[in-house]
Amino acid sequence: MSEQSGTASSRPETVAIIGVGLIGGSIAAAVKTRSIARTVIGVGRTPARLEPAVSRGWLDRVTTDVSAAAREADLVIFCTPVNRIAAGVREAAALCRPGTLITDAGSVKGSICEELSDGLPHGVEFIGSHPLAGSEKQGCEFADSNLLEGRVCVITPMESSTGPARDRLKQFWTRLGATVRELSPAAHDRALAETSHLPHVIAATLAATLSIENRPFAATGFRDTTRIASGDPDLWTAILLANADEVLRSLQKNEQITERFRTALESSDAESLKTLLNAAKSNRDALNTS
Amino acid sequence: MSEQSGTASSRPETVAIIGVGLIGGSIAAAVKTRSIARTVIGVGRTPARLEPAVSRGWLDRVTTDVSAAAREADLVIFCTPVNRIAAGVREAAALCRPGTLITDAGSVKGSICEELSDGLPHGVEFIGSHPLAGSEKQGCEFADSNLLEGRVCVITPMESSTGPARDRLKQFWTRLGATVRELSPAAHDRALAETSHLPHVIAATLAATLSIENRPFAATGFRDTTRIASGDPDLWTAILLANADEVLRSLQKNEQITERFRTALESSDAESLKTLLNAAKSNRDALNTS
Repeated sequence: MSEQSGTASSRPETVAIIGVGLIGGSIAAAVKTRSIARTVIGVGRTPARLEPAVSRGWLDRVTTDVSAAAREADLVIFCTPVNRIAAGVREAAALCRPGTLITDAGSVKGSICEELSDGLPHGVEFIGSHPLAGSEKQGCEFADSNLLEGRVCVITPMESSTGPARDRLKQFWTRLGATVRELSPAAHDRALAETSHLPHVIAATLAATLSIENRPFAATGFRDTTRIASGDPDLWTAILLANADEVLRSLQKNEQITERFRTALESSDAESLKTLLNAAKSNRDALNTS
Repeated sequence: MSEQSGTASSRPETVAIIGVGLIGGSIAAAVKTRSIARTVIGVGRTPARLEPAVSRGWLDRVTTDVSAAAREADLVIFCTPVNRIAAGVREAAALCRPGTLITDAGSVKGSICEELSDGLPHGVEFIGSHPLAGSEKQGCEFADSNLLEGRVCVITPMESSTGPARDRLKQFWTRLGATVRELSPAAHDRALAETSHLPHVIAATLAATLSIENRPFAATGFRDTTRIASGDPDLWTAILLANADEVLRSLQKNEQITERFRTALESSDAESLKTLLNAAKSNRDALNTS
């Protein structure tokens, strides 16, 4: 283990990935493919499931023991469900060497970062991350070394976060091909409620609205609009509950606009309908150029 | 012009396509690529825009004159906005030869079919069609000879529709690679409200909900869920108004499910949330196997 592993410009020698599914597997793949660390340790409850990642050279070793992996690592990344991250980080941190940086890939940041804002062993830091990449698919068999390429990765430093740890984390995600943006944990949760958690609720609601007899008439538009509703219900229950206040606020904003659509439809008001559709279109089209 | 053009098993000699955008252009492309008719005439208000389709051999001729094209054709297909189809069909039908079949590609069928259920010249028939293929893109430059391959095309015969005309229409779309399903115009509008028109409203509402400052955090999930909101506001205003009652009914069903999500979020009810997400997922997953 290098003594310089804690300095700002160094690359981690050893990365431990806790939870090697789609995201964890893709991070492992990118780290090895880009030679960002010498060793990647995968931690999972069922090591046999991680064999595909081992045989492709993305993981050097697999273990069920979070603490053992944490003890060896310069960088520990939790890719577990959001409701298991904070406790897992505490458990791992207790055995980390000073200078170890811990992060995660969870879709919610406020509750996790608050829970981890103090009480970690001296010299061990946690800063939250959220790489905005994913899929309705799960499992490391769908992992892709380019999943983060060109994507945004939000990092959410706290007041207590040190400059060097922040820089190391930023460099790590940048080397994986992501564009790093910093937000406070609360600002992250506000933004993601609107861009990811509300869309999940909306897509699920639309998918649930479809009658069985109408399935043959669901074409690409319906399929695209509801694709994310195939995401894992357990993971999404945890995400939505961890950010319920912001999701409810976004839902309320959404319902006000729905109400305008309804009023326009009820009164056959072509002008209002067109205005609403134009506003939606220009908002959506703007994403194609950003 | 063949005298057999009106018989059940014959292929049309001449197809006139009124409105050569994405759908009209794709139909023209498929007709020529699969040698389904000898001649395809394109009708548009700005013939210069149809030049790409002419130079690719998808249109034999272009004209601005609906009546002249209709007079020559065995099969006339209206691919114009839904609020212009019925009047266009009446205008064309007045000059069609007996035995000519007229159809359309509109997303709403009830009002159009009702308006055209009687009063057409003797021997000229209209039966509605709706190929469930499309895109948020517009214009014949995006046309694709395989757009209908493997897609469902709904045809909506009326009580007055003759067997031979129905068979000819069914054969035509089948030859283009589509799977034909018959529905009454009213049943079509009920089904499509749920599978296409409501999703458009939902996607537009979600796109309109996004704040400008949150655009950088809109990843693939948001983009997929709102893709169809980029559709043309004029076309969609006409579609939504022409099917407003059914769209409002679907919206109400959707809002009842949204209400359940809201209640579960407000009360941090993990079990209910998971039940809702599970139902949505299994409904969505079922589309992948159908």
